[in-house]
Amino acid sequence: MNVTVRGRTRHYRTVAFDPARNAVRLIEQRLLPHEFKIVATKDFRETAGAIHNMVVRGAGAIGATAAYGLAQGALAFRGHDLPKFRRHVEAVYQTLKAARPTAVDPVNAMNSVRAAMRAGETVEEQQRLALAAAEEFAGEDVAHCEAIGRHGAKLIRPGAKILTHCNAGWLAFVDVGTATAPMYAAQTQGKKFQVFCDETRPRSQGATLTAWELAQQKIPHQIIADNAAGHLMQRGEIDLVIVGSDRTLGRTGEVANKIGTYTKAVLAKRHGIPFYVAIPLSTIDWKLKRGFDIPIEERAAAEVLGAWGIPGDPHSAFSSRHPSRVIRHTYVRVANPASGARNPGFDVTPPELITGIITPVGIFKPKALWGQRHRLGGYVD
Amino acid sequence: MNVTVRGRTRHYRTVAFDPARNAVRLIEQRLLPHEFKIVATKDFRETAGAIHNMVVRGAGAIGATAAYGLAQGALAFRGHDLPKFRRHVEAVYQTLKAARPTAVDPVNAMNSVRAAMRAGETVEEQQRLALAAAEEFAGEDVAHCEAIGRHGAKLIRPGAKILTHCNAGWLAFVDVGTATAPMYAAQTQGKKFQVFCDETRPRSQGATLTAWELAQQKIPHQIIADNAAGHLMQRGEIDLVIVGSDRTLGRTGEVANKIGTYTKAVLAKRHGIPFYVAIPLSTIDWKLKRGFDIPIEERAAAEVLGAWGIPGDPHSAFSSRHPSRVIRHTYVRVANPASGARNPGFDVTPPELITGIITPVGIFKPKALWGQRHRLGGYVD
Repeated sequence: MNVTVRGRTRHYRTVAFDPARNAVRLIEQRLLPHEFKIVATKDFRETAGAIHNMVVRGAGAIGATAAYGLAQGALAFRGHDLPKFRRHVEAVYQTLKAARPTAVDPVNAMNSVRAAMRAGETVEEQQRLALAAAEEFAGEDVAHCEAIGRHGAKLIRPGAKILTHCNAGWLAFVDVGTATAPMYAAQTQGKKFQVFCDETRPRSQGATLTAWELAQQKIPHQIIADNAAGHLMQRGEIDLVIVGSDRTLGRTGEVANKIGTYTKAVLAKRHGIPFYVAIPLSTIDWKLKRGFDIPIEERAAAEVLGAWGIPGDPHSAFSSRHPSRVIRHTYVRVANPASGARNPGFDVTPPELITGIITPVGIFKPKALWGQRHRLGGYVD
Repeated sequence: MNVTVRGRTRHYRTVAFDPARNAVRLIEQRLLPHEFKIVATKDFRETAGAIHNMVVRGAGAIGATAAYGLAQGALAFRGHDLPKFRRHVEAVYQTLKAARPTAVDPVNAMNSVRAAMRAGETVEEQQRLALAAAEEFAGEDVAHCEAIGRHGAKLIRPGAKILTHCNAGWLAFVDVGTATAPMYAAQTQGKKFQVFCDETRPRSQGATLTAWELAQQKIPHQIIADNAAGHLMQRGEIDLVIVGSDRTLGRTGEVANKIGTYTKAVLAKRHGIPFYVAIPLSTIDWKLKRGFDIPIEERAAAEVLGAWGIPGDPHSAFSSRHPSRVIRHTYVRVANPASGARNPGFDVTPPELITGIITPVGIFKPKALWGQRHRLGGYVD
């Protein structure tokens, strides 16, 4: 999407490949929303480090980064010895896989690159095929998000007031995003609308990443405390909710997403407000039989007990103070020092609260996913 | 309630009078939860300043502070000239009233002190009556909260897991509190239970004040993000919700309270979890006919866009670092610098979501308040 830096607007993807330098170019997401910076990893080890250290995050974005990282590693090989090359590529694969061991996207992405490479009969051919496959993987991620946008944009009426939770935006993918895709598509169609971003405690991805994205795209938006959505719905100030999903159960239509999503779905149901979940097909889990069995990560208490930000004056406008140097986020402890916290990272929303699932191939009732599994790429033993 | 400072446990009220020094002693609430300090105001102007600067906050606590401040001002008068004394007391009254012009409690409290003074025929008698009336006002605040505790404690079963929102604790009153009163009473009865404190963004009164109170009383508790309550209810981890109220409509049973209360009530209803509101009688509004007409304060965007805390290391335990010097809270900007915020301070919960209203005279269905208005002190023209 577009980013404006010092008055100049350019299109960026979260991750891109620089063939001249054999480098992976990434948005340094840890500096957002306070600074926009592109970093280039000079070898696959640096690329793995960027995944590990959360320079890049989000399912689609780390998948594409790993795919490019595998190609980058393959391209760095010198010589024509195919068995040696294969051992080298295997080492690159393992390094990138170990960077975020529980994530499934880097593995899927690299497997597609490796499968494409097999058609090559020489080192050089396999290197070329690796890069082409990585580019294809990234391009498909974008195409799927754009398709989500085309389907979802129909839901946005002129003047709509949309609520979103957390960040399922282009920063989490290669471009466009999922929950944001209908908004970006509707904007391109010339529709006017506005967005409320749940701040999404404890990590505040709504206040930081989603708000930054929407500001860059010049979409009118306001950040709200997670506590405020119910009141706004009660007063008729929200027409539509669109969120993303970390895992959607193809068999039941249950949706796992950032903690607080379930609460917004319950509120939307009470107020008769449509509640949509936008997902790429890769997040559908066709095997699990009950949402209750989705493991809910218990994250560090420090997230709930404090906040990360830039020290400043609450009484002055901050936009004029946006600095151009690298910023260090400061952690402040907000809570009582002697108290502990519970910090579940995700929750599960049942299908009866979900109006529809927006996918690249169309919008489906959550319980209709299973019947459509041939169209949605689901296969189950 | 009890506070332990450097290993020594003592009982404190949020506000008390020191007759030897003619001083009002207050807990410096702006330093909580990071430091516990008592300040003594040496004259009524300092007492007014403490109300104005939020050294003391909460309906009952500022009421009692104003009552003591009026007595303090009256006691500072030298001489026997009654008309002159009356003019002096009027000036004290106006100064204290102006300290928090929209609050109703200081005015009600001071009116009761002034009414009691009228029985005195000399300056000295009126001075004595002023202090006695202020002490009586503070004592009644405590007695009412204790009565709420007696009624509410019956709702807490052994092993209960209770959710509360914001701070309707003893820090907001002279002692005991409202939403916390049943918990403190149940603890005295030897019941074991645990509490989840909603952090209560954007001002985090749950994470700071309520968590501090419960820790001082050694009640097991954990802070949760406002987003987490729905998930915990879904998993059967919450049995009971008790919150306070800023204003309860006697005619309709609607409850205005801190933003996010309505959301918790909607969630509790969905999960069949009892939802109680604990209130002193002074917060019942017998006149207003619709909750929709309660003005909802729109507060500063900076509250949503950032957080106040003590800089520290998120990876280390904080309890050992609790310092003994005066601490300055640091404001950090969390959100995207170019984004704005909506920040409604309160919301309104309809009676059908409320299991009962816990008052000093008993527990009532919200719609039964009107029929009980003779017992609840309601009179309407």
